[in-house]
Amino acid sequence: MPDNPIITFTSDFGSREHYVGAVKGVLLGACPNATIVDISHEVGSHDLLEAAFVIAAAYPFYPNRTVHLVVVDPTVGSNRRGIIACTESAYFVAPDNGVLSLVYANEPAVRVVVIEADHYFRKPVSATFHARDVFAPVAGRLAGGTDFENFGAPITDYVKFAPPPVHKLADNKVEGIVLHIDKFGNAITNIRPEEVKRLTGLEGRPVLVRVNGKEIKAYRRYYAESNADELFSVLGSTGYYEIAAPKKPAARLLEIRRGNKVEVEFQ
Amino acid sequence: MPDNPIITFTSDFGSREHYVGAVKGVLLGACPNATIVDISHEVGSHDLLEAAFVIAAAYPFYPNRTVHLVVVDPTVGSNRRGIIACTESAYFVAPDNGVLSLVYANEPAVRVVVIEADHYFRKPVSATFHARDVFAPVAGRLAGGTDFENFGAPITDYVKFAPPPVHKLADNKVEGIVLHIDKFGNAITNIRPEEVKRLTGLEGRPVLVRVNGKEIKAYRRYYAESNADELFSVLGSTGYYEIAAPKKPAARLLEIRRGNKVEVEFQ
Amino acid sequence: MPDNPIITFTSDFGSREHYVGAVKGVLLGACPNATIVDISHEVGSHDLLEAAFVIAAAYPFYPNRTVHLVVVDPTVGSNRRGIIACTESAYFVAPDNGVLSLVYANEPAVRVVVIEADHYFRKPVSATFHARDVFAPVAGRLAGGTDFENFGAPITDYVKFAPPPVHKLADNKVEGIVLHIDKFGNAITNIRPEEVKRLTGLEGRPVLVRVNGKEIKAYRRYYAESNADELFSVLGSTGYYEIAAPKKPAARLLEIRRGNKVEVEFQ
Repeated sequence: MPDNPIITFTSDFGSREHYVGAVKGVLLGACPNATIVDISHEVGSHDLLEAAFVIAAAYPFYPNRTVHLVVVDPTVGSNRRGIIACTESAYFVAPDNGVLSLVYANEPAVRVVVIEADHYFRKPVSATFHARDVFAPVAGRLAGGTDFENFGAPITDYVKFAPPPVHKLADNKVEGIVLHIDKFGNAITNIRPEEVKRLTGLEGRPVLVRVNGKEIKAYRRYYAESNADELFSVLGSTGYYEIAAPKKPAARLLEIRRGNKVEVEFQ
Repeated sequence: MPDNPIITFTSDFGSREHYVGAVKGVLLGACPNATIVDISHEVGSHDLLEAAFVIAAAYPFYPNRTVHLVVVDPTVGSNRRGIIACTESAYFVAPDNGVLSLVYANEPAVRVVVIEADHYFRKPVSATFHARDVFAPVAGRLAGGTDFENFGAPITDYVKFAPPPVHKLADNKVEGIVLHIDKFGNAITNIRPEEVKRLTGLEGRPVLVRVNGKEIKAYRRYYAESNADELFSVLGSTGYYEIAAPKKPAARLLEIRRGNKVEVEFQ
Repeated sequence: MPDNPIITFTSDFGSREHYVGAVKGVLLGACPNATIVDISHEVGSHDLLEAAFVIAAAYPFYPNRTVHLVVVDPTVGSNRRGIIACTESAYFVAPDNGVLSLVYANEPAVRVVVIEADHYFRKPVSATFHARDVFAPVAGRLAGGTDFENFGAPITDYVKFAPPPVHKLADNKVEGIVLHIDKFGNAITNIRPEEVKRLTGLEGRPVLVRVNGKEIKAYRRYYAESNADELFSVLGSTGYYEIAAPKKPAARLLEIRRGNKVEVEFQ
């Protein structure tokens, strides 16, 4: 058994009910010395894209062999499969509904098995709570050292949705979307410098951002570099450009909604 | 000392202030190798029934000898007692105000002691925060291996409220209430198949649910079995019938409130 | 390496995004056997005073050598310094922006070093997320046993704001403010009995509280000592006088806002 097994847990279960607590009880039963870490349980209900974004932004910072349990599962109980995805440094246990799509996008060498070994499951398996009865016992055993190939056969046709695309609009302009609005009101786009370079060859900083009919000209390296009443773009810690305002919720000020189109011009 | 002691913690303290953090510091002082797991701290303020529901739905999934700290405590500081309840597989540390009523309902062989051994308490004991000064040191010691009988004398007159009842309305009909509305907007009733069988002898699925003046005819085994615009009943993972809608908040669509009466007809 | 290192974590990051989860991954990479405890991540965005209040109210209850990571950091990326504050019983890792001011007020013997040893940092260091790239690796190493003097040179000019003051208004009267409104709707003032004695020589209970144009005459030792429709003052568990109502949110009933002035008269 590994010395300090870690299991992270991401879901849309919320923190008011017993759902998260029940899952953790099963995890600890299967792996008594696990350290369990919550990534988020406040993902929007049934929101696969938000969960995909959250886990993709968190898992790179975990030690090798961490097990990431990711359950947003609107089709629980149907014939959708459960899977384990294995990368060089991490395991992911999830329903096979695309919630790992942004992990797959980062990890070309992923291997996936379908969860079939039902002797690991809690019985009876509830048709509405596989997180507790299927995924938690599997994640716990995996963290405890059971080889991931013991849980089922390899598959290659796992479900994967395309992340929202970034398009080239002109020689110096790309278009993406607002991927997420965070607690501070920063609007996080899906546009990364690497993608801008691939599409346009340009490596400079943004000189103009258009979103929701507004134009933002300032670019800052960090939030507090800005003047008091300014809106600006900034390269955020997750690797995407963000639209921000100093100590204020930029998304609310500009009435930006998640999914809004964003145009960014470079020098 | 047990190898991997687990303490769960359920309260109405919220997660914004320092209350939960202060309690956990005391728990770790009393039991340094404890794994502490939050069940919920978002129980409605002073809501004993909600806390009773949440802990009863979570504790069955924990390893043997887990200590469950449950503090919703509107009469803190008064002469209400503190107790430890001991079942075959778990310990519960709580104020003696009925918050464990749904545990008692599941556990006929419970033994209860009143917490009297004040040499375990943090001093001075705040009159408004026994979770920190009384219950946490006791729960920590209990998790660390101190025998529960060391904390005080057995009692049998502990406070227990009757769970909301389910009534027989006709040969094929029962009436209960909405016990809880969860984060997804599912309305969880207090009606279990076992209770329906006991009252009516029937074992089939619901054929009609009436709540808040609306009638729901569909019954589904899992959420995604439903058609897009349907409302339906489903047997939820906690063992109670629920009223749900596919990827939508049924309770909001039907304006269902917690406590609403629910009639269910069976074949 | 210490046997059971504890790291607490307080921030304004919220619990919806990946921010807290990413930091914890780095903490566990730097200190694999750490127990990580959340104090709060729901501190108001950029609210240094609220964070200062929350950590000051929680840390005294933790075992010796606990490391407290406190990150509310509106000037992240600028030339504001990072620091480690060391008291007799605890370590604090934070930006040097005053967020530890209420710790300093309790701990005259604090020693502070500036965080300079950038070989501990995650690289590249994001200009907008030092919690993850600077403070977490330092906090993890510190919890794992690295001496705090290894992280940088001692300083004495660390940033410290004066806590909101309590004034003497008359021989038997002081004035302070509402410091915090908690989840129960209790209005927590910044007035402590020790401060009242220092200012007026009086040790009795409040006989009159004035806030937001209302007068409160009752004083109770605990919440449930009160009559049903009463508003009253009470000495809360954090050591400050509070304005409360039995099972009701006093702050909402009286339209009290954080920062409101409070006059308290004593016998």
